[in-house]
Parts: sequence; C-alpha cells; structure tokens
Amino acid sequence: MTSELIPTIAEMRNRLALSRVRERTIGLVPTMGALHSGHAALIERARADCQVVVLSIFVNPIQFDQSADYDAYTIDLAKDVEFCSRLGVDLVFAPSTEEMYPEPLSTFVEVEGASEHLCGMFRPGHFRGVATVVAKLLNIVSPGKAYFGEKDAQQLAVIARMVADLNMPVEIVPVPTVREPDGLALSSRNKRLTEEERKIAPMLYKALQLAAGYIRDGCKSAAEVRDLAISYLQARPEFRVEYLEVVDAESMTPVEQIAVPVRIAVAAWLGAVRLIDNVKA
Amino acid sequence: MTSELIPTIAEMRNRLALSRVRERTIGLVPTMGALHSGHAALIERARADCQVVVLSIFVNPIQFDQSADYDAYTIDLAKDVEFCSRLGVDLVFAPSTEEMYPEPLSTFVEVEGASEHLCGMFRPGHFRGVATVVAKLLNIVSPGKAYFGEKDAQQLAVIARMVADLNMPVEIVPVPTVREPDGLALSSRNKRLTEEERKIAPMLYKALQLAAGYIRDGCKSAAEVRDLAISYLQARPEFRVEYLEVVDAESMTPVEQIAVPVRIAVAAWLGAVRLIDNVKA
Repeated sequence: MTSELIPTIAEMRNRLALSRVRERTIGLVPTMGALHSGHAALIERARADCQVVVLSIFVNPIQFDQSADYDAYTIDLAKDVEFCSRLGVDLVFAPSTEEMYPEPLSTFVEVEGASEHLCGMFRPGHFRGVATVVAKLLNIVSPGKAYFGEKDAQQLAVIARMVADLNMPVEIVPVPTVREPDGLALSSRNKRLTEEERKIAPMLYKALQLAAGYIRDGCKSAAEVRDLAISYLQARPEFRVEYLEVVDAESMTPVEQIAVPVRIAVAAWLGAVRLIDNVKA
Repeated sequence: MTSELIPTIAEMRNRLALSRVRERTIGLVPTMGALHSGHAALIERARADCQVVVLSIFVNPIQFDQSADYDAYTIDLAKDVEFCSRLGVDLVFAPSTEEMYPEPLSTFVEVEGASEHLCGMFRPGHFRGVATVVAKLLNIVSPGKAYFGEKDAQQLAVIARMVADLNMPVEIVPVPTVREPDGLALSSRNKRLTEEERKIAPMLYKALQLAAGYIRDGCKSAAEVRDLAISYLQARPEFRVEYLEVVDAESMTPVEQIAVPVRIAVAAWLGAVRLIDNVKA
C-alpha cells in the first residue's frame, strides 16, 4: 500500500468525509517529519486502534523560539511517505506553511500551568505555538484519537490539558518513549550530534535512571535527586544542563517533596544540539 | 413540540451522535438565556438552515470583568425552554457552571487584534472568556453552523477570527440586529433600565444613524464623525459614553480615514446599565 499524500486542508476534509459517514475511526499522528522508530511506535499504536490512520508532517514555525533550530528541520517528504507506506499509514497530510498560515495568525491557545516550567522557561512561546498548531490539526482532521510520544512529556501534558479544558472531542493517547539500545531516546535531533557527542549522549538517560533509582530507594527530597543527577552529568564538560527537575506527573510543575507519581525531566545541550528526556518515578 | 432540556456534556454528545450518523445538519445558537426577539431571529435562521437546532444557555463567568454584572444575569430556565419550544428548538443545552468548569480552567483562547479595542479596552479579559467558552461549546456540540447576532459585532469578529485561524469546522452565521420600534437594539439588559432611561435609550441608535448619514454624505474623517455623534449624546447628561468609534468592519480596529466598509460602534452607560450598539456604514 502507498500512503496518499495530501497537501491542502480542503482535500484533507473531503478525503475524510466519507470515512466519517461510514463511521470509521480516525487516528492522527502529528509529526514534524524526519520520521524514525519513535514515530513508528505511534503509527503502530494508531494502526492497531483505528480504521483510518492519518499522519501529519508540518514543521510549525510558531513553536520555534530560535530560527536556527527551525531551519535545521529539513524534510525529505518522499522518504517520509515511503516510511509511512511501509507502516500502513492511509493519509499523509503535509501542508505548506502558507496553507496552515495564509495570513499572520491572531488566535493563540494558551495553556497556563503545564506550559510554565521546564522547556516553557527556556523556550518562550514554544508551548503556545504547539497548542495552537495541534488545535488546528485536530480541527482539520477531527480524529477520534491522537497519538503523542512520552518523550515530549511536557508537550503531552499541555495538549492533554488543552483537550480537557476546551472539551475537544478527541482522546489523547500517550505512547512510551522508544530508545536506542544504549538508552538514548529517539529524536530527529540525534543525527545532528557529532560521533563523539553521540557516544556520551546516553548519559542523559543514565542520569534520569540514577535519579529514579534514588527516589525508589526512598529519597524524598527533589533537591537531593537533582544534585545527584546533575553531578553525574557534570563529569562530562560537553553537557550544559538547561534544567533537570522533579515534577508532578500531571501538572508538570516542580515539586519539593517527592510523593509519587512524579516525572524527572531533563534538557541539556550537547555541543549545538539541545536534547530532552524524561522518566516516570 | 417541546424542546428537550439537556444539562450535561455527555448527554449532549450522546443525543447528537445519532443525528450525525444520519448526516443531519446541526445548528447552534449560543446564548446566556433571558431569551427575547433578538434570539428568536437567531433561532429562526438556524431553523431555516439546519435539521437539528441546539440552543445553549450558559451565563459564562469567565467573560465578566465585574461580578455585579454577572450576578444581574438571572435565568428563568422554564420560561426560556418554553420560548425555545414555541420556536421549534430541538435541544436546549443548559449546563451548570460546574459542568463547564469542573476545575479551574488553565486553557484560554486569545484572539489578538479584534479583541483589543472597543469593549476589549474597557472589559479586560472579556473576549478571552468569550472565545474560550465559544470554543468549548463548539467542541461539545460540533455544529455545522453557529449563529451570532450582529448587535455584538466585536464578539462576532473575534469568533470569526478564531474559527478561521484555528480551522474550526463550523460556519459562523451573522444575523442582523433586531430593534424595538423606536430603534433600541434588543438586549436582556434593556429590562434593567428605569422608565425614564428606557425613553432616551433609543438615542444611542439615533447617534449611530447620524454618524452613518454623515459618512454617506461624504465625511472621510473618523474624528469628525465621532465628535458629531458624541455631541448628540451629550445633550442628555444621563449618558456616559464609554467609546464611540469608527472601525474597520472586519478587524474591528479604529480607522482615521474612512474607506468603506466600516462599522460605527458605541458603548454607553445609562444609569447602572451598559448598552452597546453598532451599524454598518
């Protein structure tokens, strides 16, 4: 089967209208392209749940606080469509920037609370851009379910909050992070690492495992957990830790005293590449 | 026929699911209750267009900047349902505040530009509250069309902008303002006027007509149009004009030089009651 490539909103709606009349369940996997095994896990889950699987590819300019980062997202659409075809995606929605933003946008979805800490502190406007484009994609595709990776745990929390608060008629399905054999969380950014950086990158996950182990062993102080994990990373000067926090798993706000369930989240620069990861604890 | 009263989101969705399968068109008329002939015009238009007409009654706390104003909105639900029954409304969605806001809301829809002037200047947060609750209602009912009165022209512009920017799958239908024989625009607030205030209230519309006539006669200066209309209202000290502006009809931002199409919009206090009105010019 070849996935059908759809570039416009109007075609997308037309193409899905018949599916809806036939009461076929629609699943959406929103992506920024450069598809890898992490996306494959989202697709496989959607394929198992839904009769029609739509994958969107759109590098959303309004969620980037740094234009260099935006420019680094290059898409090989033919390659991504081939990837989708192999995994049984029905429709690939790949609109242009002009199609998604025909005029400067005036409307933004703001999610307070969950957006404010972690990446929200370091990437001003990022989650506003994410929430807004996800609202647009959900309104265009109107899926019954939409799939997001736990690797972007704060994004997941922001979207879950938005969907609940605005009564959006969709179920948000979280899918566990996919990792390389050495523990590095899959990300399209990994390929921008140098060979040397790639070798030490798994330390990020190891630091999180160390922190989670410390909590399992009974540590109740978020500060102590942070210090331990950050010290571990500081053994290698190549890492510049942006944040490493113990947060409430639902609200994504930092906690002082640890009462399960929490999540430990980290963002660190390795050379010119910003990596994020997180684990439950 | 008696309109069916539905108090919960889950029942509303269940009740409409079958209509959707049968491809029946759904029209939504969002209101804050205290229904009058202005609402009747919205209902009649929806009844003519759609196979299923839903009217929502919800006094939305998050759009009120003054609690006294919120408290003044009292609903006689039985009376409103009777009104709906007479006009052939199928479903009356009347959720409680707890049903709409089960926990403090974290997500808000912000519409920049159209929200910023006129009422937006004097009622901070008002249009954020309006856009957010309308997004919720549209997500709960998923209508093909939703009906809004032109009397609240800025609200209409904000909602039209939101729907376009977020690709919401609904058509927003504007319905002309309904007026009393003496020109006063219908509003549930009119019944709070004293007998004396009610007598002079139509001057608001007369001031707008005066301004529109001045533009028709060739005046291109928004400042001159404003001055003329405000002078007319100042003849009666009972009026406290909040704003009277000539605005771009789509963006609702004030213009200096008049090039059609514009809208002339006014807000004025008459005793304890704030009235708004507008006309095209």
